[in-house]
Amino acid sequence: MACGEFELITAYFDRVTSSRRDVEKGIGDDCALLTLPEKQTLAISTDTLVEGVHFLRDIHPADLGYKALAVNLSDLAAMGADPAWLTLALTLPEVNEPWLKSFSDSLFELLDYYNMQLIGGDTTRGPLSLTLGIHGLVPQGRALKRSGARPGDWIFVTGTLGDSAAGLALLQHRVKIGDPVAHEALIKRHLRPMPRILQGQALRNLASAAIDLSDGLISDLQHILKASGCGARLNLDALPLSEVMKQNIDPEQALCWALGGGEDYELCFTVPEINRGALDVALSHYGVPITCIGQIAPVSEGLVLLQNDRLVESHWKGFDHFDRR
Amino acid sequence: MACGEFELITAYFDRVTSSRRDVEKGIGDDCALLTLPEKQTLAISTDTLVEGVHFLRDIHPADLGYKALAVNLSDLAAMGADPAWLTLALTLPEVNEPWLKSFSDSLFELLDYYNMQLIGGDTTRGPLSLTLGIHGLVPQGRALKRSGARPGDWIFVTGTLGDSAAGLALLQHRVKIGDPVAHEALIKRHLRPMPRILQGQALRNLASAAIDLSDGLISDLQHILKASGCGARLNLDALPLSEVMKQNIDPEQALCWALGGGEDYELCFTVPEINRGALDVALSHYGVPITCIGQIAPVSEGLVLLQNDRLVESHWKGFDHFDRR
Repeated sequence: MACGEFELITAYFDRVTSSRRDVEKGIGDDCALLTLPEKQTLAISTDTLVEGVHFLRDIHPADLGYKALAVNLSDLAAMGADPAWLTLALTLPEVNEPWLKSFSDSLFELLDYYNMQLIGGDTTRGPLSLTLGIHGLVPQGRALKRSGARPGDWIFVTGTLGDSAAGLALLQHRVKIGDPVAHEALIKRHLRPMPRILQGQALRNLASAAIDLSDGLISDLQHILKASGCGARLNLDALPLSEVMKQNIDPEQALCWALGGGEDYELCFTVPEINRGALDVALSHYGVPITCIGQIAPVSEGLVLLQNDRLVESHWKGFDHFDRR
Repeated sequence: MACGEFELITAYFDRVTSSRRDVEKGIGDDCALLTLPEKQTLAISTDTLVEGVHFLRDIHPADLGYKALAVNLSDLAAMGADPAWLTLALTLPEVNEPWLKSFSDSLFELLDYYNMQLIGGDTTRGPLSLTLGIHGLVPQGRALKRSGARPGDWIFVTGTLGDSAAGLALLQHRVKIGDPVAHEALIKRHLRPMPRILQGQALRNLASAAIDLSDGLISDLQHILKASGCGARLNLDALPLSEVMKQNIDPEQALCWALGGGEDYELCFTVPEINRGALDVALSHYGVPITCIGQIAPVSEGLVLLQNDRLVESHWKGFDHFDRR
């Protein structure tokens, strides 16, 4: 067994599978060396996943390899960026070769899908955790920020909401549903979220603001509102729920998960009235629905939740690691 | 006490202290947005530090904040790059505000010194560890790589070797020395290594290869030899030892630390004969000595250690986390 740190890295992570010309030097020196194409802005995001906090202790390494990258890709999607390079800092309690093989195979499958290259990282001994640094490219001045929403803009989300939280509840045996196909579908939405990269890129010319839904709709929408200096009216009756959710989960519970469950990794974005027509055309061929769930309002109105055209008291909070004591 | 994750980050790490024009968007969106100057290559390195593995459990947070960044800067120095941006992924067992203040003050002091900007990161709950992603800039085609050494090139190191290992041994009460000034000096070399950024930049036109000494001279020099396809003759009598080392530590022990102790964060670099004169001029005004410790040889010779002009058996190994079981 290759048990040296350097051999370990070489064996599982030093696979140059992409043909990226912008990587002058990848793994194997003090730094990676990268060339940026002209008129492109670099987008960088960092995510840490800790065992027992961000993923269950018994997670399959293939699911972990997939989700760690997918979650990070979702941040690029929210900016409308093209994925380019990844750094991976992996802290492991022990050298477990089957685990490493399964984890790295899954990670590289997703890297290859997006023509990304692993350019460096670090491997250390300690309690299991991962920190990924993702680097993407976006044409200058075209990145989607949280700060561009204006009163009157329409609020949209991609896909359906709350499925990931339902999947987590199933994994933790907090709920039960009889239909095994529905059971698997919801768990898959938790373990294998699909980053909305193509949708983010298509929104570059259309959306005024965007964010990905990691903490939960209410919490993440409030980031847009704060950065844009706006309020919003959210129509709870319009929230898109999946068929499996509607057929298997109590409506009140489903609504709760859709608003605050987190980890859906769908995009929430705002679109000026003038771009609504173009939006349907631009996003229609990706096979993922988009749904208008409300409208941006002046900051004085705050965030208002409406159900059956009546005001609902807002007491939803997003997931916050340090509040969960 | 601000105990929400977002407020915590805002309070201690959202300090825009630099005036970097290449940061279009720093902390506060899904990604940071950066502009690269023309004809510059991006250099990226990642380092993870885990409590109990890379730093002692009772380390002062100010020392940790300093050293975490200094270690990462050292990778940029080894490429001859200018420091630019940092991402910080911080995993904390609890929210300890005095700890956070001391840690972040120290980190930002060093960031400011190099006119760097913290552009993002992540804060999570878990066993204490840090992953830093450092980004630097180097003129196109001028980065110092490990692969450029050629037989006949002279091998140099900056500063003195082994002091950091001596400092660690003192902190762990594995050795004792009577002189309190020497004691403090060696501990400082362990806790507060000085990244050789200016030296690395000055070497861009002069050195054929470079690496920073994190694992120990033998281990790190072997990375150069492997990447360059060369051997080397190392003159152990020439290894630069500090005065405090020479006056307080047994010579055999000092040599052992100089060769394999690690964490000196000095630069080891190779220089063609034709550049030796220019080297003295270029590096003389930084106040840090440089010392010629050997010469690159054909790969067939391997790595040869010489003492009193006689061959020494080589059994030194670098620090390897997964070999230390």
